[in-house]
Amino acid sequence: MPQFINTKETLVTEAIDAMLRTAGGRLARLDGYPHIKVVMRTDWDRSRVALISGGGSGHEPSHAGFVGQGMLTAAVCGEVFASPSVDAVLAAILAVTGKAGCLLIVKNYTGDRLNFGLAAERARAQGLRVSMVIVDDDIALPDLPQPRGVAGTLFVHKIAGALAEQGADLDAVTQAAERVIRGVVSIGMSLDTCTIPGNPKEARIKPGKAELGLGIHGEAGIEQVDFSTARAAMEMVVDRLAPRMGPGPHVALLNNLGGATPLEMGVLAEELLTSRIGGQVRWLVGPAPMMTSLDMQGFSVSLLPAGRAEEAAMAAPVAPWAWPGCLPVGGVEVVALPDGLAPIRPIPSPDDEMRALIERCCTILIEAEGPLNALDAKSGDGDTGSTLATAARALIGALDRLPLADQTQLYRAIGLELSQTMGGSSGVLLAIFFAAAGDASASGQDMIGALRAGLDRIMQVGGARPGDRTMIDALAPALDALGDGLAAAAGAARQGADATAAITRARAGRASYLAAESLAGHNDPGAEAVARLFEELDRAGAA
Amino acid sequence: MPQFINTKETLVTEAIDAMLRTAGGRLARLDGYPHIKVVMRTDWDRSRVALISGGGSGHEPSHAGFVGQGMLTAAVCGEVFASPSVDAVLAAILAVTGKAGCLLIVKNYTGDRLNFGLAAERARAQGLRVSMVIVDDDIALPDLPQPRGVAGTLFVHKIAGALAEQGADLDAVTQAAERVIRGVVSIGMSLDTCTIPGNPKEARIKPGKAELGLGIHGEAGIEQVDFSTARAAMEMVVDRLAPRMGPGPHVALLNNLGGATPLEMGVLAEELLTSRIGGQVRWLVGPAPMMTSLDMQGFSVSLLPAGRAEEAAMAAPVAPWAWPGCLPVGGVEVVALPDGLAPIRPIPSPDDEMRALIERCCTILIEAEGPLNALDAKSGDGDTGSTLATAARALIGALDRLPLADQTQLYRAIGLELSQTMGGSSGVLLAIFFAAAGDASASGQDMIGALRAGLDRIMQVGGARPGDRTMIDALAPALDALGDGLAAAAGAARQGADATAAITRARAGRASYLAAESLAGHNDPGAEAVARLFEELDRAGAA
Repeated sequence: MPQFINTKETLVTEAIDAMLRTAGGRLARLDGYPHIKVVMRTDWDRSRVALISGGGSGHEPSHAGFVGQGMLTAAVCGEVFASPSVDAVLAAILAVTGKAGCLLIVKNYTGDRLNFGLAAERARAQGLRVSMVIVDDDIALPDLPQPRGVAGTLFVHKIAGALAEQGADLDAVTQAAERVIRGVVSIGMSLDTCTIPGNPKEARIKPGKAELGLGIHGEAGIEQVDFSTARAAMEMVVDRLAPRMGPGPHVALLNNLGGATPLEMGVLAEELLTSRIGGQVRWLVGPAPMMTSLDMQGFSVSLLPAGRAEEAAMAAPVAPWAWPGCLPVGGVEVVALPDGLAPIRPIPSPDDEMRALIERCCTILIEAEGPLNALDAKSGDGDTGSTLATAARALIGALDRLPLADQTQLYRAIGLELSQTMGGSSGVLLAIFFAAAGDASASGQDMIGALRAGLDRIMQVGGARPGDRTMIDALAPALDALGDGLAAAAGAARQGADATAAITRARAGRASYLAAESLAGHNDPGAEAVARLFEELDRAGAA
Repeated sequence: MPQFINTKETLVTEAIDAMLRTAGGRLARLDGYPHIKVVMRTDWDRSRVALISGGGSGHEPSHAGFVGQGMLTAAVCGEVFASPSVDAVLAAILAVTGKAGCLLIVKNYTGDRLNFGLAAERARAQGLRVSMVIVDDDIALPDLPQPRGVAGTLFVHKIAGALAEQGADLDAVTQAAERVIRGVVSIGMSLDTCTIPGNPKEARIKPGKAELGLGIHGEAGIEQVDFSTARAAMEMVVDRLAPRMGPGPHVALLNNLGGATPLEMGVLAEELLTSRIGGQVRWLVGPAPMMTSLDMQGFSVSLLPAGRAEEAAMAAPVAPWAWPGCLPVGGVEVVALPDGLAPIRPIPSPDDEMRALIERCCTILIEAEGPLNALDAKSGDGDTGSTLATAARALIGALDRLPLADQTQLYRAIGLELSQTMGGSSGVLLAIFFAAAGDASASGQDMIGALRAGLDRIMQVGGARPGDRTMIDALAPALDALGDGLAAAAGAARQGADATAAITRARAGRASYLAAESLAGHNDPGAEAVARLFEELDRAGAA
């Protein structure tokens, strides 16, 4: 499976350097590439307890993404899924630790324990105060002797980070970290494996299955379970967590293992918060990618019992953007729909002349149904005539309820009728045309001005301009000429419509998807409809 | 491809509700589910210009994730990749628009243009001031008549949002948005298609290929190109962008289309910032998922020429967490490695008695090589004896440079030697053992106390306890008995070592991966080594 990388060997250092380029000077790295990959705060005076975490890469934003005020002082980054060396950890300790000492936050993997552990000894031999805690929050197997450290580690970073920021001493910070570790439980589930750079993806999880109780290094989950819905998946996770929860409020951390979409994570959050343990989840961190496993399409839930102290520490502001915040869980705030959604029904008013004009227009379009369909069939699906005729018949049927005597209201009412009776883009565009004409009429424009305003608006909204092989090619010249009378408008419309036969590259509307050959030599049916309308009106007027 | 959803029909509303539950009251939705899905600010008094955007879902965190102070006032969410209805847009407009009016920010897709356009007309008919801008930043095809709106839309949200927040009027906000739209260009690239919920994934992009110039709705890119590395990929993108850039500084927005890992996005950011246009990229937004296309493993780069006004508006703080900030681009800050990484070489000092003791211990272990290997072969890879003998030989060779006369320094020096000559976990653990013993000795502990401190530390770091079938099962009782003399210690060590033969469930170390049958009836080789060491020391002392 290809990935956006250059080489496996430079993957981690390149990604770290990019992060540093946009850190605004708040972060630096030690000069130890490629062996020593340590990201550290520059806004750090060693007066407080330093917090150092790290481990293999591939869990981004962990760990370097959480370096900054209120969280980690430094992160030691290994290669993908590989522990950093003793020297790298020692370099981090020496670089950031002052008299207040430092706390190493280590996830429970042998390599990390040993390398962080030996580095701690070396630092102690140099007189530094170093304590170390080991996070083992994974409850995949109830009696696992060495439970893995997974996303619950974030709770340790955050709570120890808040205390260190407040100036607590090393013992207090270490004890707080140990208290978090005793309290936190996590479990993960995934629908797919992850893609380890340079390796083919393992097709381990069959469709219809999910893995429950998995780690963050691509290793297989404790069991494969049937997968049906997000709800059933979260219920399985909750079934594992619930027996490990005491009474009282908890903070939940909903972690994206990398490849789940924000929509999926949202659905999972909703399921968690409305699950049988949802009532105890008073604060939520995420959903967000925090402790990922490369591109794994999965999630994990971590829970921490939370008293006031934990709550305050979790909510304290921090500098790293990757921290999504710890937010109180509430209900869904729902606001009533605003008035005015139902369109204002105009008050009908009679006007015989206007009624006759509308009837005449509609009749012209109804009579043109066959020819327009035939024309449309040459370049489309042959329904332009029917679409217009159907709308015209509906408009005739609506005449009794139209405000015929009020030009402004009439335009708006016609727009409304068309939007309800005429389907497709053309229906919406004609509705916009008449609605905009109504607005213009309300601001005092005469009929020609109002219709021009409608035209301008559909050009903006629809994105078509003259020359794009649309009805605009007939309508625009017709309106320009209308001041000189119907005959001039009809002539201009006909000339515009006929010119569309030579436009073989449509730039808007459905015809823009068609090849030139299917357009050449026949008029655009929309423009033809406009031309016929003006021609027949002129003929009737002359008659 | 399975996904963490319940049904296609409830996917979007469930994800929205989860977001609202953790919005701390800052966000609400209109009471129009399932047809009307509008997310809006509750901390909004209608005194300023409202900003409304939206479109199909599947682009999260766009658009609802950007609702909040300084960005959008409301987002209108359609179903996945489907435009919201006219009624939904109108509801949003009516819900948030005051006398200052509102700006609709619409991406250039026919459905969005028409539905937002008609809703705007309806709102205007009710007397509201509504303007609308159409974002068309995609430069996939240089002469496309209707370029798509993609991630460059975020620039419009951010800059118009900052102006509206400052109290600019509708004309000023609209003009600023139009200026952004004229200036911004975007192009995307992907290695894989996206998974539309409920549909099988299209296998359109072959391995070794990438699609360049793609939209955000899963449609095919403008062309398939050869894919080799992140560097070559970014060069292709830069080749399209460079001709569209004027001179002067730009803001770049590096968008994750959904499925690229943070590591990949970091590498791409590094390539962008070090590319031939990198010098003009003075500010960077991201890398982050901002305008995604579900789980598409791709990215897009958007560029906006930036003067002081744009810079200030882009940098203004906002409430939505999904906004990653707009950060100045600088160099990689590198800090020199700290002193003290090279371990302190102890000053050699002679002590004949200590020299003889160490030689004796080493000789015992060298002589036990064969039997210990044979024992290890029954439950492991048969190298325990060789590992210990190799380390013992190295230690004998190092005797001349050890500080034999200084117990504290001697422990530390032995730890250092072992960490350099003895591979594997056991080497690290023994190094930790002696380093911790050195620390304890430095604090005034006698030999037994120092060795106990070493034991405690390896129990913490290694995670093993008595009864876990490790060397600790012999070492712990031996140290407990050592106060009563070597014979007592040897007896206790032997008893402890022999007891390991009955421990068939190892809880730590390599043997924890083995079945009970391969463990029963023979001693743990590490514990056996400790027992032999004490027994032979006792025998030699007695002799």
